[in-house]
Amino acid sequence: MNESAVKKVVLAYSGGLDTSVIVKWLAETYGCEVVTFTADLGQGEEVEPARAKAQALGVKEIYIEDLRETFVRDYVFPMFRANTVYEGEYLLGTSIARPLIARRLVEIANETGADAIAHGATGKGNDQVRFELGAYALKPAVRVIAPWREWDLNSREKLMNYCETHDIPVDYAKNKKKSPYSMDANLLHISYEGGVLEDPWGEAEEEMWRWSVSPEAAPDTPTYIDLTFEGGDIVAIDGRPMRPHEVLSHLNKVGGENGIGRLDIVENRYVGMKSRGCYETPGGTIMLRAHRAIESITLDRESAHLKDELMPRYAELIYNGYWWSPERRMLQAAIDQSQHVVNGEVRLKLYKGNVILVGRQSPDSLFDASIATFEDDAGAYDQKDAEGFIKLNALRLRIAAGKGRTHE
Amino acid sequence: MNESAVKKVVLAYSGGLDTSVIVKWLAETYGCEVVTFTADLGQGEEVEPARAKAQALGVKEIYIEDLRETFVRDYVFPMFRANTVYEGEYLLGTSIARPLIARRLVEIANETGADAIAHGATGKGNDQVRFELGAYALKPAVRVIAPWREWDLNSREKLMNYCETHDIPVDYAKNKKKSPYSMDANLLHISYEGGVLEDPWGEAEEEMWRWSVSPEAAPDTPTYIDLTFEGGDIVAIDGRPMRPHEVLSHLNKVGGENGIGRLDIVENRYVGMKSRGCYETPGGTIMLRAHRAIESITLDRESAHLKDELMPRYAELIYNGYWWSPERRMLQAAIDQSQHVVNGEVRLKLYKGNVILVGRQSPDSLFDASIATFEDDAGAYDQKDAEGFIKLNALRLRIAAGKGRTHE
Amino acid sequence: MNESAVKKVVLAYSGGLDTSVIVKWLAETYGCEVVTFTADLGQGEEVEPARAKAQALGVKEIYIEDLRETFVRDYVFPMFRANTVYEGEYLLGTSIARPLIARRLVEIANETGADAIAHGATGKGNDQVRFELGAYALKPAVRVIAPWREWDLNSREKLMNYCETHDIPVDYAKNKKKSPYSMDANLLHISYEGGVLEDPWGEAEEEMWRWSVSPEAAPDTPTYIDLTFEGGDIVAIDGRPMRPHEVLSHLNKVGGENGIGRLDIVENRYVGMKSRGCYETPGGTIMLRAHRAIESITLDRESAHLKDELMPRYAELIYNGYWWSPERRMLQAAIDQSQHVVNGEVRLKLYKGNVILVGRQSPDSLFDASIATFEDDAGAYDQKDAEGFIKLNALRLRIAAGKGRTHE
Amino acid sequence: MNESAVKKVVLAYSGGLDTSVIVKWLAETYGCEVVTFTADLGQGEEVEPARAKAQALGVKEIYIEDLRETFVRDYVFPMFRANTVYEGEYLLGTSIARPLIARRLVEIANETGADAIAHGATGKGNDQVRFELGAYALKPAVRVIAPWREWDLNSREKLMNYCETHDIPVDYAKNKKKSPYSMDANLLHISYEGGVLEDPWGEAEEEMWRWSVSPEAAPDTPTYIDLTFEGGDIVAIDGRPMRPHEVLSHLNKVGGENGIGRLDIVENRYVGMKSRGCYETPGGTIMLRAHRAIESITLDRESAHLKDELMPRYAELIYNGYWWSPERRMLQAAIDQSQHVVNGEVRLKLYKGNVILVGRQSPDSLFDASIATFEDDAGAYDQKDAEGFIKLNALRLRIAAGKGRTHE
Repeated sequence: MNESAVKKVVLAYSGGLDTSVIVKWLAETYGCEVVTFTADLGQGEEVEPARAKAQALGVKEIYIEDLRETFVRDYVFPMFRANTVYEGEYLLGTSIARPLIARRLVEIANETGADAIAHGATGKGNDQVRFELGAYALKPAVRVIAPWREWDLNSREKLMNYCETHDIPVDYAKNKKKSPYSMDANLLHISYEGGVLEDPWGEAEEEMWRWSVSPEAAPDTPTYIDLTFEGGDIVAIDGRPMRPHEVLSHLNKVGGENGIGRLDIVENRYVGMKSRGCYETPGGTIMLRAHRAIESITLDRESAHLKDELMPRYAELIYNGYWWSPERRMLQAAIDQSQHVVNGEVRLKLYKGNVILVGRQSPDSLFDASIATFEDDAGAYDQKDAEGFIKLNALRLRIAAGKGRTHE
Repeated sequence: MNESAVKKVVLAYSGGLDTSVIVKWLAETYGCEVVTFTADLGQGEEVEPARAKAQALGVKEIYIEDLRETFVRDYVFPMFRANTVYEGEYLLGTSIARPLIARRLVEIANETGADAIAHGATGKGNDQVRFELGAYALKPAVRVIAPWREWDLNSREKLMNYCETHDIPVDYAKNKKKSPYSMDANLLHISYEGGVLEDPWGEAEEEMWRWSVSPEAAPDTPTYIDLTFEGGDIVAIDGRPMRPHEVLSHLNKVGGENGIGRLDIVENRYVGMKSRGCYETPGGTIMLRAHRAIESITLDRESAHLKDELMPRYAELIYNGYWWSPERRMLQAAIDQSQHVVNGEVRLKLYKGNVILVGRQSPDSLFDASIATFEDDAGAYDQKDAEGFIKLNALRLRIAAGKGRTHE
Repeated sequence: MNESAVKKVVLAYSGGLDTSVIVKWLAETYGCEVVTFTADLGQGEEVEPARAKAQALGVKEIYIEDLRETFVRDYVFPMFRANTVYEGEYLLGTSIARPLIARRLVEIANETGADAIAHGATGKGNDQVRFELGAYALKPAVRVIAPWREWDLNSREKLMNYCETHDIPVDYAKNKKKSPYSMDANLLHISYEGGVLEDPWGEAEEEMWRWSVSPEAAPDTPTYIDLTFEGGDIVAIDGRPMRPHEVLSHLNKVGGENGIGRLDIVENRYVGMKSRGCYETPGGTIMLRAHRAIESITLDRESAHLKDELMPRYAELIYNGYWWSPERRMLQAAIDQSQHVVNGEVRLKLYKGNVILVGRQSPDSLFDASIATFEDDAGAYDQKDAEGFIKLNALRLRIAAGKGRTHE
Repeated sequence: MNESAVKKVVLAYSGGLDTSVIVKWLAETYGCEVVTFTADLGQGEEVEPARAKAQALGVKEIYIEDLRETFVRDYVFPMFRANTVYEGEYLLGTSIARPLIARRLVEIANETGADAIAHGATGKGNDQVRFELGAYALKPAVRVIAPWREWDLNSREKLMNYCETHDIPVDYAKNKKKSPYSMDANLLHISYEGGVLEDPWGEAEEEMWRWSVSPEAAPDTPTYIDLTFEGGDIVAIDGRPMRPHEVLSHLNKVGGENGIGRLDIVENRYVGMKSRGCYETPGGTIMLRAHRAIESITLDRESAHLKDELMPRYAELIYNGYWWSPERRMLQAAIDQSQHVVNGEVRLKLYKGNVILVGRQSPDSLFDASIATFEDDAGAYDQKDAEGFIKLNALRLRIAAGKGRTHE
């Protein structure tokens, strides 16, 4: 069904060199109209300049949108309710932005009557999968064009030549050229791959990092913050109510200033290879610690354990690009079901890369000092109950041991 | 079956006030002989003085043993192969020591012809469960005596009175009296509970911590270390081969000096209540990070993900006291099956509370720069394969979307 | 807190000998008023006669209720949405009735101002756990009285003596005396335990079974039925709309007539022992098969697989008595999230113990013959996609094999 | 890397029309030598005739092997130790044969110096995935040729034309032409797909089934059998020791005679579509029931529950073709760890489609009638322990209920 002609394509357009080339290449290769879509997800660069660039490339339908609030409220926060971590360490900063972009690409395709979407992700990475699974799940008959899997502009030289022969202003590329890394950024994180990082034995160089100072360079005095949770989400910082993206923006700032959130890992891509990535996730690192802390006093034990057992799979789904899948929704339903009691306050101390828990309190706290106390509990707990509890839990083990199974 | 007379009981004896009282109380209450068992698990206090104390209490059979090597090799290391963390944060320092003590209590009971064992754990905690499940699993007909669940010496005053009337030298208690906390220590960690910690909103005071300096007080210059793994276990540090307990001891030292491994959590006890605990686990914190790093380059993706999914249950089993259970052995078999390829070297930088990954390398590395590279890969990976991969993974989603299920 | 006096107790009263004795024993032992609660859950015996019996025992507050509809709609059906089976075979007929009884006991206690509840379950079984966990979860300060764990009327003789000395008419017992088995029944099943069944090598005798004929005695001609599903529940049989309990009642009838639903197992009780039980679940056996069949064409693959992975834990929760727990609600949320598309029709053939699937169809079917066909599919599926799919799924295995890991 | 010339290819050759065409097509298309490999997996057809056919096609290296014993011992039996069922019903008869064929293809390629393997599976099914994942996992540089994904002989007519122009005797096809179904068979099952089965509402016709009589046509007298287990595997039937494939062969015979093991399902293929399949698995159906029965008295509760939770994933791995993966080996290690105690005897009654459990006994039985009994147990179990057991298990629920969380 993909062999039919393409009439109009919606491109996820950053305004950078690569996607500018793609604009021209799409028009030329498919003889189709190109609609550009540029989103502000908090990547820290102006998106408005993309308008002039797109216009200069002859684009007539240009979408530029500030999606920061929906991004944090409807994607980042639900994910953090699950304490989501991929492979023990990665906070999924890139992964969680893709479903939103896929959704907008499809919606814009519907609005503009486009029959295809396109993106600038390469054929080796996870992002192509995330964009395309999302698009197919939301608009099953959509045509997806992934130029990096199709064209032969596989080197910087070929790209530059293409720019020259197609009148694409090369100063677009200036910013990127400064960095030897492949980078991605949004309100949740900034990532670095490629270049010297391809040797996993080599330490990342200090100049690479952009959002945080090193722990060494962070202030010698700690910063204390209070986070207020409602339904598992942060709604105020130091008593000041904030909207979701303001929360994350604020935490990125104080986290980055205190050297928090750097990560250097080798991860397993869905497409089958290992890759080394470095990430800065200052706000996310703080949120994860704080969310676990508020859950520790408000969540039932078995709810918490069930969440911990489901989490790796939930993380894998998001990493692999299955946000828009029924199984992700099933897990989300279970997670969200547990969160209405996750209310209260967490106090943290930020210091040179450390997120140190200071205290947690909640009107919904299940912590009951009168039961847990080492002091006299006035009858709140009958220690003799423990004997029966242990005896019956041991029964199956004793019966088995009686049959000689002590070191099986 | 518990109503029969007790002839001889093996007591887990620390040499402290409480267990000294228990020696007398057992002899008096049950009219039985008492055998004491005192183990060096690396708690940082001499165990030999327990001999004189036990003798002074009239004990004739006294076992004092250095179990540090078996503790780390046969309990701590297998647990770390699973990257085990309870409730997202706790490294199970107390939990993992109990199965070994239970085993020795039972073995000594068998050697000495004792028909019972006894311990000094209270009726509110997890340790009673861990001791007793272990004992029952290994010696099903054993009688277990838990004085704290039976006697009425439930206050410091009553205990002191008992000492006086029974000629128990009260200077035993001196050390303990200095601390307002209930503490436990072994090579993996030291823990603090009770006292002012019973308010989870209150910050732990700096004087409480014993094994680590605060990040603030740690050196301004980082410490670099190289850890060598074989079969998932650390066998050398900075190129120097070490036995398991030497590894952990060394990492505790450098970790503690660099402010690493402090933890302050509210955890869910198996007996049904929440409790607040503070822990210092300098070496364990380093080991966990390093083990994940070496696994990141040597372990297959799906093996790693399966381990991550099984881990919470494995952690729960150990926390709850089911080390000596067939289900723990099943999980251990799966985990160990994955570890023979977990070999190589990890370089870390320790700095003011941070364990920063510097590099990882391995003869068994599955990281293949020639495939992952952003540069030309000389045909190692065919980007066009990605299209089919995505298309078939999307097929079920597309069919469902074609039936209108896009936002179900 | 349990040592205070009991003023009024609500008893789960069957009208049989045992619970009649309990009425007297409670009044005598605790000097309290007794409220009886008798429910029609479809056990197949009249409940109204319990009124006169209770009155004869001096009970003033008597609750007799027909709970069949809520039982099936709010407990049995939600459980079947998960294809719930305990230990591979048991359909949880007894377990699923307990949460409803616990709920009503607590609600009646609240209505009548009672401070305690009581039940006639023994101290060895699962039912005590299910009743009491439910009661505590719904009314945490309730006092629970379990006479079988307290009294010394542990033999039939002692019970009969008690009846004689307390003027309890022994003809109550007639029915029970006919059966050498401990039995329980409700709309979902009837169960048999004890007696000669305590030898798991011995075959259950034909006379034991009450709800079904043997496959041998079933008709030589099959019965066909059509079941209509909406949202995962059966709403009509052979095109005739029915309420939930009518559905189950009807299926029990046709199932039992065709020799369907007998089960003979050794199961693991929550209290730690194995026990042998025989069950007749004609309707449930049909429902399970039919539900899987309608799901097979309407449910997404990964949703179905996730449900299969969660099911054993969900079954365990219900078996162990944790219906009224937050973790059960979490799982239920996930399961229910998947069921709104589970609509359509299943045709079955019932024949001498067999439930044979004849056909399934649905407006929500995801089965697409044009894709699956062995014939020409007119381009609905591109076979060449399979190569890329396989290649990328194989990539991690190839890299590992390249390092020599082919038979690790 | 696949663009190089192929010198020699090992083909999984059935001797039928399709793979005979493939022999010619490979030689013609790739100009390479073809080695044929034909295995007796108990499919019920002679394999020796394949020799003459291959010779007639000009094949010089011909492998014909009886793999029945290794198939059952090393693949079927390990799978049944896990009580493996895919999507609640399918016993994986086709899936489990593929890893063995993949292994032999690769080994023969190594022996004969072949650089490629080929198979006759289509591009829509699971078998291509299973063959190829296995091959890549065992010989990473192997080239795989899947003619059905490459050629244009996509209709019966084109195939017949090809035969004619290439002198392939069409009588090969006679057998196949008789059946309107796509079939596959080995000792574990025979499967049917395609044709009228592509309508999931239509009942399979009686003439389709080949290995079993219908329940209606089965004898009116039941057949009793005794199965002896050692380490989870059946080693004797009715007291007569048998090798693994003899066990399965015998059970197929008595099962089929008694109308046992027919299945009609819609399953979810790994490549993303649903397909309808009918299966006859007489012996496997008996083995599954019997294995659960012997486990029910010999296996620890938590081991059994862990197995039940891991099973769906294990089944999925085998269905999807990941037998030769490290994660399958991890799960197998856990499963096998549990099986050394699974010894004993199971007695079954086979009757018109029913596998009825009659009894189970074992020297390793954990069933202890003296504990489970409704009669006096002479102190083996203290009913009062149950109170403490329940109280502590309820504690978290009571604390939560005390905070108002009774119907959250």
